[in-house]
Amino acid sequence: MSDTTQPCGLDDIDTPFLAIDLAVMDRNIERLAGRLRGTGVQLRPHAKSHKCVEIAQRQIDSGAIGLTVATIGEAEVFADAGFTDLFIAYPLWLTPQKADRIRKVTARAQLRVGVDSIAGARQLAEYLADLPITVVIEVDSGHHRTGVDPAEAGDVAAAARAAGLNVVGVFTFPGHGYTPGHRAEVAAQESHALGAAAESLRAQGIEPSVISGGSTPTVDAADNTVLTEVRPGVYPFNDAQQFELEVCTLDDIALSAVTTVVHTRDRTAVVDAGSKILGADRPGWATGFGRVISEPDARIVALSEHHATIEFPGAAPDAGTRLRIAPNHLCNAVNLVDTLVVDASGGPRRWAVAARGANT
Amino acid sequence: MSDTTQPCGLDDIDTPFLAIDLAVMDRNIERLAGRLRGTGVQLRPHAKSHKCVEIAQRQIDSGAIGLTVATIGEAEVFADAGFTDLFIAYPLWLTPQKADRIRKVTARAQLRVGVDSIAGARQLAEYLADLPITVVIEVDSGHHRTGVDPAEAGDVAAAARAAGLNVVGVFTFPGHGYTPGHRAEVAAQESHALGAAAESLRAQGIEPSVISGGSTPTVDAADNTVLTEVRPGVYPFNDAQQFELEVCTLDDIALSAVTTVVHTRDRTAVVDAGSKILGADRPGWATGFGRVISEPDARIVALSEHHATIEFPGAAPDAGTRLRIAPNHLCNAVNLVDTLVVDASGGPRRWAVAARGANT
Repeated sequence: MSDTTQPCGLDDIDTPFLAIDLAVMDRNIERLAGRLRGTGVQLRPHAKSHKCVEIAQRQIDSGAIGLTVATIGEAEVFADAGFTDLFIAYPLWLTPQKADRIRKVTARAQLRVGVDSIAGARQLAEYLADLPITVVIEVDSGHHRTGVDPAEAGDVAAAARAAGLNVVGVFTFPGHGYTPGHRAEVAAQESHALGAAAESLRAQGIEPSVISGGSTPTVDAADNTVLTEVRPGVYPFNDAQQFELEVCTLDDIALSAVTTVVHTRDRTAVVDAGSKILGADRPGWATGFGRVISEPDARIVALSEHHATIEFPGAAPDAGTRLRIAPNHLCNAVNLVDTLVVDASGGPRRWAVAARGANT
Repeated sequence: MSDTTQPCGLDDIDTPFLAIDLAVMDRNIERLAGRLRGTGVQLRPHAKSHKCVEIAQRQIDSGAIGLTVATIGEAEVFADAGFTDLFIAYPLWLTPQKADRIRKVTARAQLRVGVDSIAGARQLAEYLADLPITVVIEVDSGHHRTGVDPAEAGDVAAAARAAGLNVVGVFTFPGHGYTPGHRAEVAAQESHALGAAAESLRAQGIEPSVISGGSTPTVDAADNTVLTEVRPGVYPFNDAQQFELEVCTLDDIALSAVTTVVHTRDRTAVVDAGSKILGADRPGWATGFGRVISEPDARIVALSEHHATIEFPGAAPDAGTRLRIAPNHLCNAVNLVDTLVVDASGGPRRWAVAARGANT
């Protein structure tokens, strides 16, 4: 088995655990930041992928203008940690408690929130119109999750403005780009939808300063003449999905579960990592439940909570062998651990997954 | 994280969260305990499903002889909490650190561990033969994960005994019973494999006192003339998988994610619970990513990290509506939260998921 020898220090940590290759992560962060520099498109990475203050700081240091988060709870964590420009890219439905929590976040950070209905806009205004929050209208660019039709964005924007909110633009999440062979097509749909939504706002007399899209699979193909901002999340790490979508090579994967083989028979091995550290994600097009980084021809054919069953092209490695596995979807894997082990020169250290479990 | 005023009811707790209906859970616990009483089959529930001291105590109080756990970390949590009879049902591959952790557990609890290879048995003996640990041999009853062929169990047992270990029996996990329409067939395979493995031990002069099997889908069909012990995990709660396997009714589901509708269009609603609270599990035969408990005809057709997209047979509920969703696989859902909200008379309280994240 090549590539399974661990640098000094990691061997003393009981498996399974999630490890970051810091050099690869820093290269990934800088690569995207470098590609965006000078294009006029700003980078606002999604912090839900790493939930980690140290990684967010590296993104800001590389030129990101702020962070995207998914929940009020994530906004609280990153505002507490000193990040001052946050976007909750979610159509919140407020309660008095949630409104109170947002109010406290705005004491520490400039906050932007998403809205995708007139009812949601009015509710937001009722609770929080006195705050210096900015609002962007979510549009559906083909993923068919949340968001309004681009042509309706102006109506929602006008209603939000009439209710007293400061509408600054539009956003979308092109999640249907997570399909092999469709990234460029989806990026074109994203740009088209955002352009139409921007026009819909202008027809209501609102000039959008924020036209925000982007995901890791589509960010390279996004139309820089339309978008003002991108929000990829996975790019610092990459994962098995990104590899199988041809977004990255195996060498670009910075995060893996370090596992130990506990059972071997012929060409099959079972390791001590299952869905409780890799996550259970498996899109229909994936070749397995993650990828063994050193063995591109191996397939993870079954996953239990504490077992991954791996079929190898030849003899499987012996019990006791350590293998690194890239999760299919790292955002869910990271959310399963309290700390990430950082494999860096000088020996391993740990970073807290500060926003782990911040679902509300 | 702001944890402001003491909530007076479930409605005051921000969604999403996991809630237990205590009356239903207690009924589920008592129902299985009652069915086993007088059969000679002992109950050793798997604590990986709930990871919760309060629930484990209720299982012991109902007559369980001890607990099953999946990892040394879970054994540490439950030994610390005062549980004195623990079975790590996993073919451990020890390191000096892991052996030291087991040694400390045995100072507080009687410990049984699984072995499924001669190499594993010798390694266990090398580290821990001086301890009063008991050993059971894992056999494969058709799930094809870990475990040896039943006919080979005697060879492993003899090698373990020769190495100085105290071999007391055999165990299996009939995980292939998680398939619609195959529960009785799989239970028969389980009983047959365990019976054959017991014979294989007897042929080596080892009379097994422990013949352990059982999972929630198969426990009712297990052959009580063969098995001495069952280890179901999910039965206190049930989940969408158990409902679709026809193990339980919707009324028997004691654990759900309480969610809020954030977006509605026609027959489709999106709620604020995704894979970060429900888990991403979806077996090929499942009808969706969980079930809406109050709407048996609704289907969860898509799941993101913080969104579940639900198609209803008629008009979808308005934004702001709360819905309870049974996860497909509660073991992974419970592992995503720090606390379970207990819906009981006198108002909600919280139980810690004490062994959350205890993967090593």
